[in-house]
Amino acid sequence: MTGGLHGIIDKITHHSRPNSRPTSPVAGSARKSLDSSRHAASTHSTDSGPVHLNANGEPESKSEMKKRLKQEEKDKKKQEAAKKAAEKEAAEKAKKAALEDDYSPESYGKLPLNNSSTRSGIKRTKLEEITPELEGQTVFVRARLQGTRAQGAKMVFVVLRQQDHTIQGLVVVEPELVSKKMVRWVEGVNDESIVLVEAVVQRAKEPIKSCTIHDVELKVRKIHTISEAPSMLPFNMNDALRPMDATEGVNVALDTRLDNRVLDLRTTTNQAIFKIQSGVGNLFREFLNNQGFVEIHTPKLQSAATESGASVFRVSYFKSIAFLAQSPQLHKQMCIAADMEKVYEIGPVFRAEDSNTHRHLTEFMGLDLEMAFEEHYHEVMETIDGMLKHIFAGLQQRYAHEIDTVRGQFPHEPFTWLPETLVLKFTDAIKLLQEAGVQQGTPPAPIGDYDDMSTSSEKALGKIIKQKYGTDYYIIDKFPLEIRPFYTMPDPNDPKLSNSYDFFMRGEEILSGAQRVHEAPLLVERMKEAGIQPDDMKPYLDAFKLGCPPHAGGGIGLERVVMLFLQINNIRRASLFPRDPKRTTP
Amino acid sequence: MTGGLHGIIDKITHHSRPNSRPTSPVAGSARKSLDSSRHAASTHSTDSGPVHLNANGEPESKSEMKKRLKQEEKDKKKQEAAKKAAEKEAAEKAKKAALEDDYSPESYGKLPLNNSSTRSGIKRTKLEEITPELEGQTVFVRARLQGTRAQGAKMVFVVLRQQDHTIQGLVVVEPELVSKKMVRWVEGVNDESIVLVEAVVQRAKEPIKSCTIHDVELKVRKIHTISEAPSMLPFNMNDALRPMDATEGVNVALDTRLDNRVLDLRTTTNQAIFKIQSGVGNLFREFLNNQGFVEIHTPKLQSAATESGASVFRVSYFKSIAFLAQSPQLHKQMCIAADMEKVYEIGPVFRAEDSNTHRHLTEFMGLDLEMAFEEHYHEVMETIDGMLKHIFAGLQQRYAHEIDTVRGQFPHEPFTWLPETLVLKFTDAIKLLQEAGVQQGTPPAPIGDYDDMSTSSEKALGKIIKQKYGTDYYIIDKFPLEIRPFYTMPDPNDPKLSNSYDFFMRGEEILSGAQRVHEAPLLVERMKEAGIQPDDMKPYLDAFKLGCPPHAGGGIGLERVVMLFLQINNIRRASLFPRDPKRTTP
Repeated sequence: MTGGLHGIIDKITHHSRPNSRPTSPVAGSARKSLDSSRHAASTHSTDSGPVHLNANGEPESKSEMKKRLKQEEKDKKKQEAAKKAAEKEAAEKAKKAALEDDYSPESYGKLPLNNSSTRSGIKRTKLEEITPELEGQTVFVRARLQGTRAQGAKMVFVVLRQQDHTIQGLVVVEPELVSKKMVRWVEGVNDESIVLVEAVVQRAKEPIKSCTIHDVELKVRKIHTISEAPSMLPFNMNDALRPMDATEGVNVALDTRLDNRVLDLRTTTNQAIFKIQSGVGNLFREFLNNQGFVEIHTPKLQSAATESGASVFRVSYFKSIAFLAQSPQLHKQMCIAADMEKVYEIGPVFRAEDSNTHRHLTEFMGLDLEMAFEEHYHEVMETIDGMLKHIFAGLQQRYAHEIDTVRGQFPHEPFTWLPETLVLKFTDAIKLLQEAGVQQGTPPAPIGDYDDMSTSSEKALGKIIKQKYGTDYYIIDKFPLEIRPFYTMPDPNDPKLSNSYDFFMRGEEILSGAQRVHEAPLLVERMKEAGIQPDDMKPYLDAFKLGCPPHAGGGIGLERVVMLFLQINNIRRASLFPRDPKRTTP
Repeated sequence: MTGGLHGIIDKITHHSRPNSRPTSPVAGSARKSLDSSRHAASTHSTDSGPVHLNANGEPESKSEMKKRLKQEEKDKKKQEAAKKAAEKEAAEKAKKAALEDDYSPESYGKLPLNNSSTRSGIKRTKLEEITPELEGQTVFVRARLQGTRAQGAKMVFVVLRQQDHTIQGLVVVEPELVSKKMVRWVEGVNDESIVLVEAVVQRAKEPIKSCTIHDVELKVRKIHTISEAPSMLPFNMNDALRPMDATEGVNVALDTRLDNRVLDLRTTTNQAIFKIQSGVGNLFREFLNNQGFVEIHTPKLQSAATESGASVFRVSYFKSIAFLAQSPQLHKQMCIAADMEKVYEIGPVFRAEDSNTHRHLTEFMGLDLEMAFEEHYHEVMETIDGMLKHIFAGLQQRYAHEIDTVRGQFPHEPFTWLPETLVLKFTDAIKLLQEAGVQQGTPPAPIGDYDDMSTSSEKALGKIIKQKYGTDYYIIDKFPLEIRPFYTMPDPNDPKLSNSYDFFMRGEEILSGAQRVHEAPLLVERMKEAGIQPDDMKPYLDAFKLGCPPHAGGGIGLERVVMLFLQINNIRRASLFPRDPKRTTP
């Protein structure tokens, strides 16, 4: 394996190497000094072969021989001690020389541009795969160099990062393998550069608290930069990772982060947030696919601007004009009129509202669904409820590591829900607020029975419900007809109410939905009441004239679900490249 | 169960019914006539108890008795014949009366608007669940009434449709259950109305060729309209379903279909096409999720208009201007620079090109992916290849019924591919065309070694490859650098070539991709060569200055994959509500 790893580095660096390992200067000089001491020893040989004569030229007596041997023994010891001292001195000299000498130039440095000139096929190991069981094995890792920290002249600690995982690496001077120059070079590599590392896995002597991988570290043998970051970054990554409740140090301002979103997205927190965001979409589809839903893609370019009060963006369309869809509402309903029965869509939604709040974006991801029902719109409301609970449970089961990572920076209470979801009638929800003395408006006034709840009233309600029922998640059903869009089906009993619902997480609305009017004459009537010219929505109206089953649906804001589940407090943190009235970049 | 079904109809129609079944007029009158005939028979009793006297008042002789008995026998027969005749006449009268009488008014009619006033919870059966095993069982079905056909005064055949399934129903006059008035009413229901049917499942005496379900039919007991279609439809549904190779009858023009897309989408063919389209997306994600990809959602509203030659749509953005993304190219690469490693996106792509062809839309669905690689961009090309083969195999395995349904209207050869995908170098592909004498351009001329292939040359190549290699699917690698976007990585050996590829289905390009330039200095150089001011793309360029791993990717047109797999010959047929330079509606 090591041979193979050498092979790949050769190819990548385009350095030519001799086929056999060269005799290193260290090894060479050490051998030389050993040879000369061996030679010295042989010239003072104490062979007992020839007969020894005494000082008088006569064969020595027994006592003379004894004396001579004793002296020789003494000399030998002296010589050996001298030899050892010489060896030691030579070794130390060699070692010192080695430290100054760059005997491992092929073990570090900047790689040339990778334009796919070679392919060895050698496996790279993911950080999350590195466990104590791999101890002693050599691994090959591409990672971000999060930071370096020198300890004396002979050692540098590095933190290597892959998405939401970090591991400690050690670069230590070692004869034949790691030169002092190499250690110094590593120390000088800019943070956030991408490196290719060959390293031996070793168990950590004590848990490494500064990395997400605590029990192992990497003893670096080779390290090269694949792509280098600049010496000055827009902000410090440690500041970017500081917990929101830290008592010391600064955190990076949100605008600074968003201006430099690519760097910001690299934090372990953000890597985790967007894995979770991806998970929400997958869980949404997983549940609905199992229920027989079909995924649709409706056009974002539309000929008419009408739908609800929300403003729309105008688009130059060749010699004409078009509008960006405020939601897939009209077309998903047309799909129901076209017999598609159960449909969902995950797509962008555009709102030209000049709302600069923590929970509004001008472009966000809508998770929309629409479903024909047999008897009662609660069939649909219950399907949506099942889907949301599938998402919550799925996140807690499959994304525990990511949730923990986010919690490390944004402390939050785990999200709670009830096995049987709390469904409150709108009028009962208002009563709870009235009983609690909650007021709204300017000047603050008690809430009327059919008033639309303000954002702060909704939050107050969330707290009351959490206290009373112990849940962060609930449904409010039967909203006043007047505060819902024209396509909402009126309640069969109370003309002031409607067959509509909102779903809430931690006191904020994440989904709005309703039974829709599926008969054209009533739809025309409701349009007129809402001040919409039926002719302006002809294709939509025509769909219902052709016959349409009773149906209901809803739309979820993906970023709101992520924001509220993780309590990250600003919707921009749940959007890769957020768009608001003041931001269309990066 | 039947009681329950009666119950639900009651609730829905708000008709009150007596608790016990009323004695029907037919049954009552028949019983009466039987009673009277029994009475008549008793008055002419031939009891042999008393002694019989002859005509002379004397006890009758043996021969007289014989004669008398014979006469009585004759009379008895005559009376019985008369009785039978009377019975028959009475029964016929009663039956005739029954046919004129509407003894089943609660069994048919228009239901009031469903505004969710009640909920019985009774299960509706899906047509695809109805098999011969359900024979004799009563089912409850909501379906589209595709058409009715009367046979005499007492019977109407109906075709009921749910998405891509149809079944035959029979409405036959039957005493106590189905009145002649009911049969006549059914005959008068407009095609494409939505009906709620209570029916008994029965085996078909012979295979029903006109429906997708051949072996069973429904004997209708009750039928109500939930939503009614108008008497005149924009086109005839039988015309809309006629095979493209039919020798008789007309097919509906594509523009007429698209103008009335909701009706058009209801055909079994279109229901199948969009289930398959949904399947492509699911298979795409399934494969990539298993490979560790993360789903991303990049903004469609962008501050800059640059990327490639394609024109962009301009959007009024508050007091400023924005542009619609021509692809997620820039942002998906920025996600790679942000360490997301492997990302995909399914989202709308906007092209302001005035191309009015069979394969261009101004808004289509892009299945985009981008992936960091270790050594060579072929790692990514092979991942894309694996993903596409997963889609092809998945469609053939999971959507066989839908593919058959589409083939019924659009005859086509099954799509073929090789276990080991054919990868041709661009220069070798050009050679194949040159050898075949294919010309392009105006006036037609032989193709140069580094020329961009025209659409017709691509199609010619597809035919050559199909003949030579027996595959509808292949990859062309190493396109000339000059005909690719500025962000394409040049080939390491030949400066005229690049590390880029296109994927083809049946001679048409479905995916274009490449290794990207991941180092800022080279990117600046390439931008300048392409006439782009680096400052105009600052956020994109900045991403690479921060360090970025080598990466490659590609973008698939969803509608093209569906169109070419099914050979439906026009991309508009693979888009729910297509958008082209001349169409932004419905």
